[in-house]
Amino acid sequence: MKRRQNSPQIITLNDVKSLLNQSDLYGLITEGFIQHSKGNAVIPPVGELLFDNPPGEAHIKYGYIKDMPYYVVKIASGFYNNPLIGLPSSQGLNLLFDCKTGVLLAIILDEGHLTNVRTAVAGAVATKALANSGAKRVGILGTGTQGYMQYHYLSEYMDIESVSYWGIDKDQTENLVNKINATNSIAKSEDSIEKLCAESDIIITTTPATQYLIKSSWIKPGTHITAVGSDTPDKCELDSNILMSADIVVSDSIEQSKTRGEVYRARLAGYNATNLLELGNVLNMPNSIRTDSNQITVADLTGVAVQDLMVSQAVYNAIID
Amino acid sequence: MKRRQNSPQIITLNDVKSLLNQSDLYGLITEGFIQHSKGNAVIPPVGELLFDNPPGEAHIKYGYIKDMPYYVVKIASGFYNNPLIGLPSSQGLNLLFDCKTGVLLAIILDEGHLTNVRTAVAGAVATKALANSGAKRVGILGTGTQGYMQYHYLSEYMDIESVSYWGIDKDQTENLVNKINATNSIAKSEDSIEKLCAESDIIITTTPATQYLIKSSWIKPGTHITAVGSDTPDKCELDSNILMSADIVVSDSIEQSKTRGEVYRARLAGYNATNLLELGNVLNMPNSIRTDSNQITVADLTGVAVQDLMVSQAVYNAIID
Repeated sequence: MKRRQNSPQIITLNDVKSLLNQSDLYGLITEGFIQHSKGNAVIPPVGELLFDNPPGEAHIKYGYIKDMPYYVVKIASGFYNNPLIGLPSSQGLNLLFDCKTGVLLAIILDEGHLTNVRTAVAGAVATKALANSGAKRVGILGTGTQGYMQYHYLSEYMDIESVSYWGIDKDQTENLVNKINATNSIAKSEDSIEKLCAESDIIITTTPATQYLIKSSWIKPGTHITAVGSDTPDKCELDSNILMSADIVVSDSIEQSKTRGEVYRARLAGYNATNLLELGNVLNMPNSIRTDSNQITVADLTGVAVQDLMVSQAVYNAIID
Repeated sequence: MKRRQNSPQIITLNDVKSLLNQSDLYGLITEGFIQHSKGNAVIPPVGELLFDNPPGEAHIKYGYIKDMPYYVVKIASGFYNNPLIGLPSSQGLNLLFDCKTGVLLAIILDEGHLTNVRTAVAGAVATKALANSGAKRVGILGTGTQGYMQYHYLSEYMDIESVSYWGIDKDQTENLVNKINATNSIAKSEDSIEKLCAESDIIITTTPATQYLIKSSWIKPGTHITAVGSDTPDKCELDSNILMSADIVVSDSIEQSKTRGEVYRARLAGYNATNLLELGNVLNMPNSIRTDSNQITVADLTGVAVQDLMVSQAVYNAIID
């Protein structure tokens, strides 16, 4: 028997955008984190290539979940001088393979969009799991792609009454506020991070800051914070005292948080991580981990290959459906 | 300035075959090995995923050469039950990226052909560098794809008077002999490996054997052996005494040969590697490393990512030319 080998599906950004609309992203990302925390994911350490001239880096994230049909390889690079020649700094693609034969099934030329989506959906999943059920006022630091997308996906899964933005670039901040208000008049800009914290039940940080932006004393009881920006050893958005005094801290990968993100930075400052749980374990609990509306909770997300697997799989399943 | 990003070239197997004809593969592979041995190649350890049911493995080889324009990522898998459902066991692809921007330039859907070619050309390069200049009689163990391709590429770069094949499958061996004789009546089959060794100036091994096939006492003075089959810790085609008593042993990567291939297996048996050199250093010498026509020489090739880089680059350069 000679089986004809089909060509891989080549899926472009436009396809990706329409296919994602057909997918239960919330359920898929939740399931990915649960499988990861159960130890069912096979995720080797991230592969890395560094470049000097011009400076750049490429990362290869790959893996699979046992008893699921596909393995993923994601190649993503950052060349920060690219905008000088009119190119986005982020480049890369996702590849999906059959776990039973190795056959290449899909080449997803998503131009970074899947990474943005899986990061935003993970933020929404963590926020909904940890915030007070009545939390309606959102404050977001950072007005780039992720600053918008965290709002966009959270608003699909929770009722949001208001969203306040703080950003370094005031024009960009106003533009984002206007964009949201064009369809839903709930956004405003805020010059003071302290004031933004005082007026928010949920705070989401999406900046590339390397020194903390939010002081511990600004956080009022009952607040939930989702920290998305810091995914390397160098980056940091939260005062380490926030993690030390929080009732619950959740990391998407406790293993990764030993070397990167807010948890890593807080450890350097003496955080002993006795209040630290892994997101997949929290999502798998029958009841909310939060037991009191005055508790302060933090989610620190550095990004895990199971997320890349789940969104690539969703796109592929939608196209072959 | 907003530069439009071109789509990557998608290059299929048929394209690959015709494009390779336009390339100086011998020169490119030679240059790759020289740069590798000079320390100019950035080649992180191979990434690996293992699968249980059915058994399979995927390897990710990636890297670049300093001052060259591209980086390569090759994903190659082996699922050895695939033939039961009519699929080749080998699957995978090569990706070529711009080292200065990270932009994906080419998706090469070569179905394993580039790996076969780079392996065969490396064999020819090593054989020509080490064999006596008058060596004309070739003996090849193994009658699969690589058994044929080692002959094919070697005959492009050296005058071959005869080629003898030994293989486990007698029908397959006769078919290969007939195929070669259809255009050039120089091939024959040989049932005895000992006799094949006695009649050959050059021996090339291309089998997946895990116990040695060639005894040291069968090798006559002046013989050169290129061992291609063994590329893992489990595989072995040569009696360790061959490496111990050889005048010169060459490895494509001394680093890799610490953990795989003939050199690794011989080390376990007490080989002290005082006669071991790296291929790129030998290729960079102004004169032949062989100084006497009675010397016995061995090349142990386990396959290096610079080869994948050089052939992927050749295909891409030919298509954009």
